[in-house]
Amino acid sequence: MIEIKAKWIAADWGTTHMRAWAIGEEDNVLAFRESNEGMKDLQQNEFEPVLLKLIESWLDDTKVTTVMACGMVGSKQGWVETPYLKTPCVPIDNQQLTIATTKDNRIKVNFVPGVMQNNSADIMRGEETQIAGFINKNPDFNGVVCLPGTHTKWVNVKEGQITSFKTFMTGELFGVISNHTLIRHSISIKGWNQAGFEAGIHEGFNNPGSIASNLFSLRAESIVNDLDRDQARSTLSGLLLGVELNGAQTFWENSNVIIIGSQLLSDNYHQGLKILGGQSQLFSLETATLSGLSFAYRELNSN
Amino acid sequence: MIEIKAKWIAADWGTTHMRAWAIGEEDNVLAFRESNEGMKDLQQNEFEPVLLKLIESWLDDTKVTTVMACGMVGSKQGWVETPYLKTPCVPIDNQQLTIATTKDNRIKVNFVPGVMQNNSADIMRGEETQIAGFINKNPDFNGVVCLPGTHTKWVNVKEGQITSFKTFMTGELFGVISNHTLIRHSISIKGWNQAGFEAGIHEGFNNPGSIASNLFSLRAESIVNDLDRDQARSTLSGLLLGVELNGAQTFWENSNVIIIGSQLLSDNYHQGLKILGGQSQLFSLETATLSGLSFAYRELNSN
Repeated sequence: MIEIKAKWIAADWGTTHMRAWAIGEEDNVLAFRESNEGMKDLQQNEFEPVLLKLIESWLDDTKVTTVMACGMVGSKQGWVETPYLKTPCVPIDNQQLTIATTKDNRIKVNFVPGVMQNNSADIMRGEETQIAGFINKNPDFNGVVCLPGTHTKWVNVKEGQITSFKTFMTGELFGVISNHTLIRHSISIKGWNQAGFEAGIHEGFNNPGSIASNLFSLRAESIVNDLDRDQARSTLSGLLLGVELNGAQTFWENSNVIIIGSQLLSDNYHQGLKILGGQSQLFSLETATLSGLSFAYRELNSN
Repeated sequence: MIEIKAKWIAADWGTTHMRAWAIGEEDNVLAFRESNEGMKDLQQNEFEPVLLKLIESWLDDTKVTTVMACGMVGSKQGWVETPYLKTPCVPIDNQQLTIATTKDNRIKVNFVPGVMQNNSADIMRGEETQIAGFINKNPDFNGVVCLPGTHTKWVNVKEGQITSFKTFMTGELFGVISNHTLIRHSISIKGWNQAGFEAGIHEGFNNPGSIASNLFSLRAESIVNDLDRDQARSTLSGLLLGVELNGAQTFWENSNVIIIGSQLLSDNYHQGLKILGGQSQLFSLETATLSGLSFAYRELNSN
């Protein structure tokens, strides 16, 4: 068995998950590990042990290995609170990295700051790294990036900067509606019905003010007309995304949107936009994250 | 101490509450009791004992006392499943009452059926009784009745019939958003800020598609600009109601809406409509309920 030793380590540490990559001399991925020990479940003094448990075998005990971390780990409830950059700004500014004080002197942990906007107030942590990664691979890009997730970000990018952005908590709404309202009795846990999704996209987009009524209709349809549970789930997904695409229309109506997110959610957004006549293309979430952290690492060491 | 014996008993038995009134010879209220033993917490065989516990002292042991009940107690998960009337229909049809089989022969329990609509699918249980009560007091009424609640009903009434209606689950959304999303960290438990409510009404009404973004903004504003927690709560309330008033506009734009609901919610709806240029007036929830059950009782005994 070959022992893997990292030149540096990339870490994407969010609210519910932690993902780490051992990076080699050629900026290549040597190994990947992940854990469910997200920021929300950890006390301040637990971050270092959790990180070490995941990456310790990748460390060369004779030197200090740099860890580049992004995500909610840099929030007030995280390991070290990392100040936000303010829009308009480059997504990653290597002068603004924050360093954690560690007990173990084999690691030096750097946090990428999040980005905030004053008016209208908005915040991101983690997505700025993916945007930096995408820009790094596409330096001449001017346009719109959409990062679907629990809190989806629609981001205007111009000349290498984040000029403005808008967050929609559609994913979190889907979660609480499907788990904590009477609709939970009428939908499946997973399963897909394309016609239901498409009908939901149209109705949500055309009549966003009726969302609270269209949601109740899913329950009523299941009682009155025995609505299929997969169809109900897909319609719910379509309705909420359709409402968001109404509110985000200024972002996508004249753009070929770059979508960076998990495969499933990215496909939903791509499809939703297509149904409404919008254009989009997918960019790999992992490539974006690693390219962004790699950019931050190189910048750090070029000074 | 005077012993109260009821001529008949009115019961409004919903998902979370049970309210009962002892009614006298002149259709006057002799006594009122309530309990938190709502439909959702009871097994099928528990309804009779719970009812008796509340009303037993009002019974004359030498005769059978009629109980007129409305609400979710008549649903599939309730005491006896009561079939729905279908729109267009009178709100209460005394030919369609359902009777519970009781062990105790001192009571005869009658359930008022709910009302359903096939297209678009919708259901109500309890509100039909309040509508019947309002119509009973205002026999020439033609117009719109709004019944705010967890599932608010907007109802078209014409010549004594419910012609169509639409349910908005805005109240339930307010509950899950304020208790189960990240917004819970940014809002007070109660408290009021009029400017926040009004701003929410306008923004929700004008930009319903941005609701998932405006919700996230409450959290971002609290982080970025230290938004006051009472203001956040009132803005949340205004935003969700504003979206509903957009979706319900065809109901209220040319009507003087009759609002029947709890005082707090009714005031919110009245205010929200006023802010948007709509007209409404409040009608007492208790009067509506008792007048409706009283109507059902009289009809029952006129046959």
